Amino acid sequence: MGVVIPLKEGNDRQASVKPLVAVTKADMDRVNQLILARAGSDVQMIPEVANHLISSGGKRLRPMLTLASAAMFAYRGEDHIKLATSVEFMHTATLLHDDVVDESDLRRGRSTARMIWGNQASVLVGDFLLGKAFKMMVETGSLEALDVLSTAASVIAEGEVFQLSIAKNMETTEDDYLAVIRAKTAALFSAAAEVGPIIAGMGTAERNAMRSYGINLGLAFQLIDDVLDYGGTAKDLGKNVGDDFREGKITLPVVLAYRRGTEDERAFWRQAIEKGENNDAALQRAIELISEYDCLRDTVARAEHYAAIARDALAPLPDSAEKEALLEVIAFCLSRAS
Amino acid sequence: MGVVIPLKEGNDRQASVKPLVAVTKADMDRVNQLILARAGSDVQMIPEVANHLISSGGKRLRPMLTLASAAMFAYRGEDHIKLATSVEFMHTATLLHDDVVDESDLRRGRSTARMIWGNQASVLVGDFLLGKAFKMMVETGSLEALDVLSTAASVIAEGEVFQLSIAKNMETTEDDYLAVIRAKTAALFSAAAEVGPIIAGMGTAERNAMRSYGINLGLAFQLIDDVLDYGGTAKDLGKNVGDDFREGKITLPVVLAYRRGTEDERAFWRQAIEKGENNDAALQRAIELISEYDCLRDTVARAEHYAAIARDALAPLPDSAEKEALLEVIAFCLSRAS
Repeated sequence: MGVVIPLKEGNDRQASVKPLVAVTKADMDRVNQLILARAGSDVQMIPEVANHLISSGGKRLRPMLTLASAAMFAYRGEDHIKLATSVEFMHTATLLHDDVVDESDLRRGRSTARMIWGNQASVLVGDFLLGKAFKMMVETGSLEALDVLSTAASVIAEGEVFQLSIAKNMETTEDDYLAVIRAKTAALFSAAAEVGPIIAGMGTAERNAMRSYGINLGLAFQLIDDVLDYGGTAKDLGKNVGDDFREGKITLPVVLAYRRGTEDERAFWRQAIEKGENNDAALQRAIELISEYDCLRDTVARAEHYAAIARDALAPLPDSAEKEALLEVIAFCLSRAS
Repeated sequence: MGVVIPLKEGNDRQASVKPLVAVTKADMDRVNQLILARAGSDVQMIPEVANHLISSGGKRLRPMLTLASAAMFAYRGEDHIKLATSVEFMHTATLLHDDVVDESDLRRGRSTARMIWGNQASVLVGDFLLGKAFKMMVETGSLEALDVLSTAASVIAEGEVFQLSIAKNMETTEDDYLAVIRAKTAALFSAAAEVGPIIAGMGTAERNAMRSYGINLGLAFQLIDDVLDYGGTAKDLGKNVGDDFREGKITLPVVLAYRRGTEDERAFWRQAIEKGENNDAALQRAIELISEYDCLRDTVARAEHYAAIARDALAPLPDSAEKEALLEVIAFCLSRAS
């Protein structure tokens, strides 16, 4: 099952995360070491649970944003390593808690921590990683970076609660949905990108540029992720096509299909999402409706809109290998849907 | 049901938290306003869940420790209000997550948030309050206070995971149990007390004194709390006698009774705690064994030991109304078991 998603011409199908990996390689080795060191504890369950997720092959896009944005402004200190590690810990903590909240069984093709160690361990190890993240930020002594990252932590949690409060409600508008992903996904991309110019001592122009880049990249990233749930394969995703559907998650393709459908179709969506009638036949019908109304194509178009803003945000900044890599990541995010 | 706990002579049965309430009254009014303001959100579920717990009549001992310890060292700024509020938010976040982890139905005599809004909301609103706590700490700009409080956050979570990893295991030693409560309860008391001298610009002597006071007060407080679970009434506690027992929680009275008992009695404890055979008859037997081996009396004796350390920690500090109030809180904690 799955929909073939027509992309506008001009998207770079060869776009890759590799340039970003290359420009951050030396620093990422140090981040990976620090991740292992700081997820350590005499309480054996903590590294077990933490490493299960940490070693599960995520791309670590967020800490790479921090490292690249620090390097881009010629930062020469050591704090970017701790801040990048903090960003990844915040992300990992969020995933642990998300899986509990969403009752998810699989993440990136493996059993979730909560399926192996239980919800209790997932909640508490998430709290531990969040505590360690703050401790590392404090060690850098950068109050501005602390301000940006602690604000992101509140905003992320607020977005998650908002998502919970509108869960399984088909009246959710595109604006509601954007508010959710702006908070729960884009806020951390934004903070990860902004701390680079902060520790490099840059002014508001550079901070604003990187913040705008991060927030819009995050929005594009999440929208493409939503598309992949109806058009990818488990292999690419580490999740199965239809996971969002089966969990009753409202994403933009669903919001669009509901709005563009007939009254009968809207009744189908309410049964599926609100009442949980989401077996394979229902998923098949959902995919057909999403295809019929071009909802994946148009979700990609929305993502391209935010991608364009992210590109323009970087435009005034001086050319560098890091800038090129960060630009290519935008294209890479879009190309995942091709 | 419940055991009459014989206290050593000399404990002040009239000891009260009132002097602490009195010396912190003006500041606590501001903390209470800030609690309401910072627990606010456009996402309606956040203040609903947060205020349910915040308005449930806890004594707010922890923020009062911060306010009293700041006043004791003649602090004249404004940061104590935000730090005290942060301390209370950290505590509230921990309670929200604890109730999920322990699957608790009641707290302070009311339904827990998770029974009303679900585990999901409890996890996420806890995260939100933790994020807000860090944001407020950052606003004070005190990196030393941030260091102490962010370290406490990691230690608390680590203690909770340790508790989970030894849960329902009757081989838990008194030392294991002390390590748990040192981390999950005493660390926040300690941090709450230590930030006062920090923001007042005091040196290590004053910081060490308040840290020692806090950690030992916290240990005594938790041990008496454990005693009350086998010897108090729901009215005093906001929980029912035997809640810990029914949740299979290992506390010091149980550790002692298990060690002091016969082989048959140890088999009973394993069935009750490890296998969950904890009906009313089992609770009755547990209370009888705890009474037979004087386990509440001796848990109180342990608490008195830590209380003595807390008193001596304050001894070198100059006399003041705050010092008197903090000393009386030690006696008050012990007197709860009388």
